[in-house]
Amino acid sequence: MKPAIPKGTRDFSPAEMAKRNFIIDVIRSVYNSYGYRQIETPAMENLATLEGKYGDEGDQLLFRILNSGLKNVQHSVKISDIAEKGLRYDLTVPFARYVVMHRHEIMFPFKRFQIQPVWRADRPQKGRYREFVQCDADVIGSDSLLNEVEMVLMINEVFAQFGFKIKLLVNNRKILSAIAEAIDQPDKITDLTVALDKLDKTGTDKVVDELTSKGFSPGSVQKLLPLFKVDESLNSKIHFLNSFLSGSETGRKGIEEIETLFRTLAELGVSSELLKLELTLARGLNYYTGAIFEVKLNDPRSAFPGSLLGGGRYDDLTGIFGLPSVSGVGISFGIDRIYDVMEELNLFDQIPYTTSSTQVLFVNFGEKEACHCLQLLSHIRKKGVHAELYPDPAKMKKQIGYADANRIPYVVLIGSEEIQSGLLTVKTMLTGVQEKLSLDDFIKRLTE
Amino acid sequence: MKPAIPKGTRDFSPAEMAKRNFIIDVIRSVYNSYGYRQIETPAMENLATLEGKYGDEGDQLLFRILNSGLKNVQHSVKISDIAEKGLRYDLTVPFARYVVMHRHEIMFPFKRFQIQPVWRADRPQKGRYREFVQCDADVIGSDSLLNEVEMVLMINEVFAQFGFKIKLLVNNRKILSAIAEAIDQPDKITDLTVALDKLDKTGTDKVVDELTSKGFSPGSVQKLLPLFKVDESLNSKIHFLNSFLSGSETGRKGIEEIETLFRTLAELGVSSELLKLELTLARGLNYYTGAIFEVKLNDPRSAFPGSLLGGGRYDDLTGIFGLPSVSGVGISFGIDRIYDVMEELNLFDQIPYTTSSTQVLFVNFGEKEACHCLQLLSHIRKKGVHAELYPDPAKMKKQIGYADANRIPYVVLIGSEEIQSGLLTVKTMLTGVQEKLSLDDFIKRLTE
Repeated sequence: MKPAIPKGTRDFSPAEMAKRNFIIDVIRSVYNSYGYRQIETPAMENLATLEGKYGDEGDQLLFRILNSGLKNVQHSVKISDIAEKGLRYDLTVPFARYVVMHRHEIMFPFKRFQIQPVWRADRPQKGRYREFVQCDADVIGSDSLLNEVEMVLMINEVFAQFGFKIKLLVNNRKILSAIAEAIDQPDKITDLTVALDKLDKTGTDKVVDELTSKGFSPGSVQKLLPLFKVDESLNSKIHFLNSFLSGSETGRKGIEEIETLFRTLAELGVSSELLKLELTLARGLNYYTGAIFEVKLNDPRSAFPGSLLGGGRYDDLTGIFGLPSVSGVGISFGIDRIYDVMEELNLFDQIPYTTSSTQVLFVNFGEKEACHCLQLLSHIRKKGVHAELYPDPAKMKKQIGYADANRIPYVVLIGSEEIQSGLLTVKTMLTGVQEKLSLDDFIKRLTE
Repeated sequence: MKPAIPKGTRDFSPAEMAKRNFIIDVIRSVYNSYGYRQIETPAMENLATLEGKYGDEGDQLLFRILNSGLKNVQHSVKISDIAEKGLRYDLTVPFARYVVMHRHEIMFPFKRFQIQPVWRADRPQKGRYREFVQCDADVIGSDSLLNEVEMVLMINEVFAQFGFKIKLLVNNRKILSAIAEAIDQPDKITDLTVALDKLDKTGTDKVVDELTSKGFSPGSVQKLLPLFKVDESLNSKIHFLNSFLSGSETGRKGIEEIETLFRTLAELGVSSELLKLELTLARGLNYYTGAIFEVKLNDPRSAFPGSLLGGGRYDDLTGIFGLPSVSGVGISFGIDRIYDVMEELNLFDQIPYTTSSTQVLFVNFGEKEACHCLQLLSHIRKKGVHAELYPDPAKMKKQIGYADANRIPYVVLIGSEEIQSGLLTVKTMLTGVQEKLSLDDFIKRLTE
């Protein structure tokens, strides 16, 4: 048989893992340094937990697991009779389920992060997989805007370590609601935001067409037009909103939240280059109730269009499981896209261990020499160096080829001469240069 | 609805995750330092890849995933018609599949490690779960005994960091085969080893009974008896084997392998306290062809009976997928059991970050003070300290309670007085002592 893997899934080679681990480690370490606590939930959840949470389309994209012990199906049956479990579709619903199940052990506010794969039976295509890792952080049980501030700081810190420039788009659901009110279409907020979300891609005319086709009156559309002409600066936008939404209490609250967030971040030295108030940003609006975040690449070296992070504030995450009025704010990094951007910009080359996990290969000249090498290896590894001995006394060409293929930067040759002198012959693979070094000098070079 | 999770699965709380991460990080970092390279494979594999690899019983324990798009089942169908994918059952078969699929990219010998969950529809019971993490390292494509040596060094280094004592039991399949030959039952090696494996638990008489019931002649059983009476020392055992297996080429080879392994390890300073040649050790024998490893707890503080690691050398791992004659040796740590032992012996208490992920909580006295704290927090986090600000200006009692519940060791209070003086009021939660410290002195204390 010719082995294969299910479509839409991936194997990750050592080279890919090293790069993925770099991205995930950066995110995890920032989450940790801000006091977020990691949890994990099972890959399988009861379908009762998952169904109805992602809309009809989402329900169809759930991977369902056959009840165990089932041998055949004899009669016509409903799927629900033979499959009671499914693979998790995201980390948010399992988190809500977790909070409700463990509410008596949890001290609120609860700052949790979770980095685990999720599964969706989506049609696979470039950049879209049936198994992919999500990296979520959420704080729930606190209404303070300081949580939003902290989310932005974390986003900023994470992306600073990736080596490319981003733009963090910020909006507020309250402002979107107030805009719908201001153009006399408070009930059509979903249609409004779906249309606005496309402004970037399609331009004003297409947005106007879409609104008209969705039944927005010419008067409403007319009222909306000034929104498309607002100057790019934060002050202009705030100024515009103050007058455009002047009649709305919700609008006033939204503007105040935005102002507080931007002011606090400015005081903390977050560059205004990074942040942008994007009045058309909506992102799965029905979910969010306050701040909305999205990160886009903003780097002259690449035109990557996708979103690299999404997030926002939501109310009542846990209501579906019987625990009402729990408000929270969360973010989720798109690590596959971050990976693609870093790959495109060759950014992994500058980062240790992302091109090779091993720093030194000791060549194997035979039993006696190998045993001597093992002694040195034990010493060298204690200094934190990743090192290995070629297990077989194979031909030199083969051993060097191994170092080459695995991109190991240094090869050490220890024959009888080196055992006597106590010096190592060190070959730097990149240059081909060979030199004699003491063990200490070599370790110094590796750990500097 | 009252939320629940599928039986045999677990949520991991932040406290549990911190401990699990500690164990996994130790293993990963040792694997890395020996030049093992991490891979990951998809949770779902085609059932064609999984079926027939774990025996009939294993096939029944596979979790099967319904083909997506399936709405109802109208007629009587075979399970195989409606489920083509399953969750991986171990990491070995996916690894074999990986090696065959990627054989043209892989440079052999291939040293890989893999740390991922596996799923088995086993009946859940204490210590046995339907989802659990395996931590495997294997090197394939090399026959050198240095690989076995390296495996023992890695095992030794990993367990040294856990703080309890172990015994590493070693045997060799060739010796077991030769024992079966020596008692004139070469075809009954499976029955023989299944019986021998129980010697520890049941004693000699029961083993003799079992062998008799399996059709071993009285003469064969009689010939076996000296094996049960061998002195515990390595030399006595080797001496015994040399005469007991003197007629067998396989036996001679097995003894030689054992001698080389033990001698090399002694030269490398591995304590003979750690290693034990256990002539009755078999562990899923049909799989192994050379060395067999098992780790047991050997600590006066606990009588934990389970095996904490298993491993050994095997031939022809990838033959089932069309790539014959690939020999390898591998080990697999049982992290759930290691966790239980460390918990029982209170070993996590001594390890940083396993009791709390956050080192410092800054109390929130209001907007102005909080903003000042955020500045300090940014500074303190850059020094590698995990720190957080309570997001709401809640009552002091509530904020201190939060630090207490999350086992955060230090609380910092910054009111208007502290802002003016530049000193922090630091409360050590364990003692209740409050003192004034400069930021630098406080950071020094945290990072020392």
